[in-house]
Amino acid sequence: MVMQLSQQEIDRAVEEALREDVGTGDATTLSVIPRETQAVAEMCAREEMILCGMDFLVTTFQQVDTALDVTLLHRDGEALESGACLARIKGPAGSILTAERTSLNFVQHLSGIASITRRFVDRVAGTRARILDTRKTRPGWRRFEKYAVTCGGAANHRIGLFDQVMIKDNHLATLGNNHTETIPAAIRKSRSMFPHLRVEVEADTLEQAEVAMAAGADIVLLDNLPPETMQRAVEVNQGRCMLEASGGINLETVRQIAETGVDFISVGALTHSAPAADISLDFQLPNIQ
Amino acid sequence: MVMQLSQQEIDRAVEEALREDVGTGDATTLSVIPRETQAVAEMCAREEMILCGMDFLVTTFQQVDTALDVTLLHRDGEALESGACLARIKGPAGSILTAERTSLNFVQHLSGIASITRRFVDRVAGTRARILDTRKTRPGWRRFEKYAVTCGGAANHRIGLFDQVMIKDNHLATLGNNHTETIPAAIRKSRSMFPHLRVEVEADTLEQAEVAMAAGADIVLLDNLPPETMQRAVEVNQGRCMLEASGGINLETVRQIAETGVDFISVGALTHSAPAADISLDFQLPNIQ
Amino acid sequence: MVMQLSQQEIDRAVEEALREDVGTGDATTLSVIPRETQAVAEMCAREEMILCGMDFLVTTFQQVDTALDVTLLHRDGEALESGACLARIKGPAGSILTAERTSLNFVQHLSGIASITRRFVDRVAGTRARILDTRKTRPGWRRFEKYAVTCGGAANHRIGLFDQVMIKDNHLATLGNNHTETIPAAIRKSRSMFPHLRVEVEADTLEQAEVAMAAGADIVLLDNLPPETMQRAVEVNQGRCMLEASGGINLETVRQIAETGVDFISVGALTHSAPAADISLDFQLPNIQ
Amino acid sequence: MVMQLSQQEIDRAVEEALREDVGTGDATTLSVIPRETQAVAEMCAREEMILCGMDFLVTTFQQVDTALDVTLLHRDGEALESGACLARIKGPAGSILTAERTSLNFVQHLSGIASITRRFVDRVAGTRARILDTRKTRPGWRRFEKYAVTCGGAANHRIGLFDQVMIKDNHLATLGNNHTETIPAAIRKSRSMFPHLRVEVEADTLEQAEVAMAAGADIVLLDNLPPETMQRAVEVNQGRCMLEASGGINLETVRQIAETGVDFISVGALTHSAPAADISLDFQLPNIQ
Amino acid sequence: MVMQLSQQEIDRAVEEALREDVGTGDATTLSVIPRETQAVAEMCAREEMILCGMDFLVTTFQQVDTALDVTLLHRDGEALESGACLARIKGPAGSILTAERTSLNFVQHLSGIASITRRFVDRVAGTRARILDTRKTRPGWRRFEKYAVTCGGAANHRIGLFDQVMIKDNHLATLGNNHTETIPAAIRKSRSMFPHLRVEVEADTLEQAEVAMAAGADIVLLDNLPPETMQRAVEVNQGRCMLEASGGINLETVRQIAETGVDFISVGALTHSAPAADISLDFQLPNIQ
Amino acid sequence: MVMQLSQQEIDRAVEEALREDVGTGDATTLSVIPRETQAVAEMCAREEMILCGMDFLVTTFQQVDTALDVTLLHRDGEALESGACLARIKGPAGSILTAERTSLNFVQHLSGIASITRRFVDRVAGTRARILDTRKTRPGWRRFEKYAVTCGGAANHRIGLFDQVMIKDNHLATLGNNHTETIPAAIRKSRSMFPHLRVEVEADTLEQAEVAMAAGADIVLLDNLPPETMQRAVEVNQGRCMLEASGGINLETVRQIAETGVDFISVGALTHSAPAADISLDFQLPNIQ
Repeated sequence: MVMQLSQQEIDRAVEEALREDVGTGDATTLSVIPRETQAVAEMCAREEMILCGMDFLVTTFQQVDTALDVTLLHRDGEALESGACLARIKGPAGSILTAERTSLNFVQHLSGIASITRRFVDRVAGTRARILDTRKTRPGWRRFEKYAVTCGGAANHRIGLFDQVMIKDNHLATLGNNHTETIPAAIRKSRSMFPHLRVEVEADTLEQAEVAMAAGADIVLLDNLPPETMQRAVEVNQGRCMLEASGGINLETVRQIAETGVDFISVGALTHSAPAADISLDFQLPNIQ
Repeated sequence: MVMQLSQQEIDRAVEEALREDVGTGDATTLSVIPRETQAVAEMCAREEMILCGMDFLVTTFQQVDTALDVTLLHRDGEALESGACLARIKGPAGSILTAERTSLNFVQHLSGIASITRRFVDRVAGTRARILDTRKTRPGWRRFEKYAVTCGGAANHRIGLFDQVMIKDNHLATLGNNHTETIPAAIRKSRSMFPHLRVEVEADTLEQAEVAMAAGADIVLLDNLPPETMQRAVEVNQGRCMLEASGGINLETVRQIAETGVDFISVGALTHSAPAADISLDFQLPNIQ
Repeated sequence: MVMQLSQQEIDRAVEEALREDVGTGDATTLSVIPRETQAVAEMCAREEMILCGMDFLVTTFQQVDTALDVTLLHRDGEALESGACLARIKGPAGSILTAERTSLNFVQHLSGIASITRRFVDRVAGTRARILDTRKTRPGWRRFEKYAVTCGGAANHRIGLFDQVMIKDNHLATLGNNHTETIPAAIRKSRSMFPHLRVEVEADTLEQAEVAMAAGADIVLLDNLPPETMQRAVEVNQGRCMLEASGGINLETVRQIAETGVDFISVGALTHSAPAADISLDFQLPNIQ
Repeated sequence: MVMQLSQQEIDRAVEEALREDVGTGDATTLSVIPRETQAVAEMCAREEMILCGMDFLVTTFQQVDTALDVTLLHRDGEALESGACLARIKGPAGSILTAERTSLNFVQHLSGIASITRRFVDRVAGTRARILDTRKTRPGWRRFEKYAVTCGGAANHRIGLFDQVMIKDNHLATLGNNHTETIPAAIRKSRSMFPHLRVEVEADTLEQAEVAMAAGADIVLLDNLPPETMQRAVEVNQGRCMLEASGGINLETVRQIAETGVDFISVGALTHSAPAADISLDFQLPNIQ
Repeated sequence: MVMQLSQQEIDRAVEEALREDVGTGDATTLSVIPRETQAVAEMCAREEMILCGMDFLVTTFQQVDTALDVTLLHRDGEALESGACLARIKGPAGSILTAERTSLNFVQHLSGIASITRRFVDRVAGTRARILDTRKTRPGWRRFEKYAVTCGGAANHRIGLFDQVMIKDNHLATLGNNHTETIPAAIRKSRSMFPHLRVEVEADTLEQAEVAMAAGADIVLLDNLPPETMQRAVEVNQGRCMLEASGGINLETVRQIAETGVDFISVGALTHSAPAADISLDFQLPNIQ
Repeated sequence: MVMQLSQQEIDRAVEEALREDVGTGDATTLSVIPRETQAVAEMCAREEMILCGMDFLVTTFQQVDTALDVTLLHRDGEALESGACLARIKGPAGSILTAERTSLNFVQHLSGIASITRRFVDRVAGTRARILDTRKTRPGWRRFEKYAVTCGGAANHRIGLFDQVMIKDNHLATLGNNHTETIPAAIRKSRSMFPHLRVEVEADTLEQAEVAMAAGADIVLLDNLPPETMQRAVEVNQGRCMLEASGGINLETVRQIAETGVDFISVGALTHSAPAADISLDFQLPNIQ
């Protein structure tokens, strides 16, 4: 896995999540569960999934109660069968109940993203194409979702607007219609101002792609082009720059695109619409007391 | 709509979102787009949807550049046809480009939730049942997602662990197996400690439901019971307390459950798995300069 | 005790308190006290009191210097005689001096509230009435003061505007003068929008109280009514909803009100005007060195 | 007035106060009060008081709703008769109701402090003695309470441990029992390390006071000495340094102490035990609509 | 200029700076300057300099007092003669005095960096070499100092560890001594994990530089090589990748290095040791009153 | 040393510094360095210096990776020869590389200030004069830089505008030209409003100095006066108040000024223009693996 989450940012996210959920106190647990009641609970997958978010899980239980003992049975990035248990939690019953929903919310959402990602990755196995994510993430969750993408086996596209230049159609439009002039000019300006960043150029036609290749773009984005045109772009390119395909790609179409020979395929659906993975916490008591 | 978002919390969410996306600067726009270039852009729906998140949209563009002029063409909660435009933005082209993805990420995710919610709401029209959300939300987004649910026409269940007592099976399990004793005892304790909060009790069988009704629960949650049992619970209840149905309810099953006469139906899928609504920003230039 | 303070919020409050008091450094201690000087100090009550705030005390000394060893001699909620010592602190003399005032400020204010609360609670012993606090707290201290109230033996009324509906005279006034219409309508609206919250209605006359009872309020607030009227309300109610008395109630009047049979008596004076408890830190040195 | 509160810190305190009180939304107002309902309300004193906290009042109403129009009828530091109104608020009825308790909590607590302070100040009128506060404040409220003290007409003692050296008995005790050596040594050390700060020395006997005067203390604190001894200290001092009286001084004893000729009298009771001033918000509607 | 500072981050920096300097209040101004006293002040250069930090200046005066009227006489990036005035401030005298030091501290430090930068930039005029900064900045000031560098006319190297891969000698050392294997391997790994980032490789010898060029590095850093070796590297490179010179370069040596034909010269001294520019605020009163 | 930095503020500064430098991840280390690679590194002085900032160094490495083992070889305030090593770090190679620049940035800047300070202090050895710093610090770094000054052996002048009254020429100018009236009036007002703070008065002539002495100033600042005039001021003063010299004092002039008999000499150059000390981290591997 590549995207590196710091314990500090996980701590902060969990603190906010608990503040949001527990707020002024877990009224039910406080009034119903005797403090001394101990319990064991297991968190188990209710469908096949790629696991992601175990650090969030541990941090949530620890923040709620340091007396809780969490045993991880699987690690981020592993494929789980339906029914497989991912963690066992032992300790004060009330604390487990207070932490339950928050920890599940993290792991379910992140595993949902990892799982859909893995399906795309598997679909292109054996080709040179690598699956990339996009910036279509939930605000505040960009890094967590990009981390989940790496758990699923794909690589991250740029993190934000700051770590790569990406000249899209709308940028070019502001410079006028003559692409043979505007594309090289835009590349030149970017290189001058941000000498340490890569420059990617979006091409909506093969002609634009050729201009960008000739002008020394590091990457050319082939947006919504038919597979044959992409294949033609690969041939024309002759390895000068990297080629990325994008535009409404789904599990049905991704293989054909990968076989055109492009280097990358970026897929918004990895993050913008991944359903949560189904996981439950099963409570076992009062075995220990 | 009920859930009330403060401008302050919207401001903070947008600040964080821009920090995350723009980071140390929008390298592309800074190097490619001349400061004086003006543009007009429209944000339009690419599928049918219930709109949600317009305050986030306005705030994003305003935070990026106060010189941007945003005209809202529709309001939160309205149903849009595919192709309908929701906002028009006029001003510095570079600023529109910098704000584009962040504003879209807010509106797409929230409209996705509002849209799926509306479908559930429409499905139960004419019955006494109201659709409720759950706490299965993305950490940090609880209030925003619950707001989107109200835009879709449903009501909010409790916001967190603090504003309602909800005695679930796991709580009862810690008290032993004798429900005729443990349920009334748990209700009594809750009432004593949190006299100002409602008490809801989860029932997995009709018998448990009857105990809870008799013990004076404010609401009884009928979890994963067959429709016939729910209907029986409605009859037994005789209006003493409110009844809520839950448990893997989907668009296919919701109507039948509503017709049993329950007061509420809570649906996790409103928030945990709503796909983002498809919206795009279409750039029109250089009409004005 | 019910109100649950997290170590996290105590940490934050103590951090802010020390920032405020120590600021850029304890100039006196830094210049006068040699680092190696050790001391023992005791914190003792100089009047009878109910103790409250020991977690703040420990946290303050620990944040100032982890080398300090704090032994707690009593716990929150205990009744102390004048002269009883509540904690013993051992370690670097300078650190004890730096932490002294901040730790005292917490414990004195919270014990002041707990002490006055206990007096009200004792006064109504043997009746069904429970003493409640109000929202008349110092901004920023709501949760701490409500915690002190529970140390004193009373229960908490709603925490804020968010966890209970409370329809007061001013709310009703906006709807017009016809209470037999406005009260039921207001209850209905509240139930519809916040199905998971309790609804309380303020009644300034017996007639209003009866309307509220009939309309299904969960709680009726009898505001500033004479004891006889309250007693009449209890009779009329026949256990349908809970009854709460309020309005300038003091130690002289509270017993008579409790004997009317109301369920709750809310008292603003618990928090808005509690004098600080008198506690001092007595320094013993240089026994150890 | 001297203590200067920045709008920024008032903003932050009000934000926190509203977060604490309004939390996830004012459920009652949201469900009961139609958005379009307008109202006028007046905030009026229900007992004599010195007013303090009007900036908090304005800020609270403005943060809740910028559509509210607040007219201030009196200013901080003014003496109000019982019945006098201090502010008039006009605008959306719901917003007034949401802001009511938070704004009152600020003004009532601060006016309580200003009022008790003024009584001490009036008691010593005509003497050279000035009333000072102490550090016995509620954590987080130090600056606000010290501001209220200046509204009451007294001056502020040091703000915290950082802006003055104050060598107390416990500091001296760490250095041994020989005050004729330890006091001059402590003064010398303080002057060397913090050349820009004043040095005050606590004296529990006349002898200690004389040592401190001779050693060049800027201020000598006469702690819990009988008035005659204080008077004697004034004579001995011959104007060399400033003299401050302290120790359980109340409204009955303060005049006699002031007449000894000391420069300052510090009184913990100004802040640690001031009861809240009684103020109410009276709602007038629906005159305007 | 390229590095883009947001008003938000400037606001935060100024808030922190004022909190640090003004703290609990500007005691001198509060006690000595009558509130109604008006004044005009000018901020003027006392030596030649490149101006930088005007947004910080305006923000400081505005945060202290919105009644202050600030007229900017020059802009960031302009060269000032000694004696030239950069801003005129008009308004309450006390507010000008309170803001003086904080605003000067910003402008003096940033202009110091811009000024030394410009001297390096001028020294290489006419060559293809561009001056770059490094990460040798004061923690917390990275972005501000890099902004000052762009005001001086140089370009920014990477902002931090996140926006470019830079394989230095220490990285390579961990992989073993065989550079012909380790350099290509390291480049390959970086490309695979961070496909959207540029890869730079540090070379301490010409041989290493050649390996890096052949392996497809985007940039090769020639660290502490003699000018002749750099020139040889330029020839060998034949434009395949960009070349950057670094290592203790000063105003005496920079021209010779620029003439070797390298693309970039990075200079730590731009930020790590720039003396503050000499600027004073001259007060003119009481012309206006 | 006097200025006391809390671990809390060091933690925060290091957190911010790492956020700034590492941002979304150290791309190079993540992709090139295997997690299991261990290393030893030494941080060594490359010129003579007074060491300062070791707590920042330790905190940085610990925050990056708690598995790092840091051995401090010298302490803050010690004088190091060129070549002396100050710390040895052992542990995961990647973590050392990630923390390297941030830890160096702290120690280099702070040691730079301590080193220049020590040179001034040494220059006045044997005189009664003590070297003081000023408020000419980098915003956000005031306390850290003042701490470095104490490591260099000088004392701190006031921390900010809040902990001492300092009546400068601009303050006096607002009160009119008659210094024999304005100076005593200003001192009187300050004493009245801030009885616990020292009062310093700036004098631009001997006459003004005499007025200030006579009016009871605690300290008189002799600004930019020739040494003879300063000497005369010392004689006139007869020990009544403390005298401070200031105004463009450098290493060449400081001794002569010290010999005039003034108590303090304040030097802006300690902080506003100290060059960073030259320190490097030398990596030794793969001795351990």
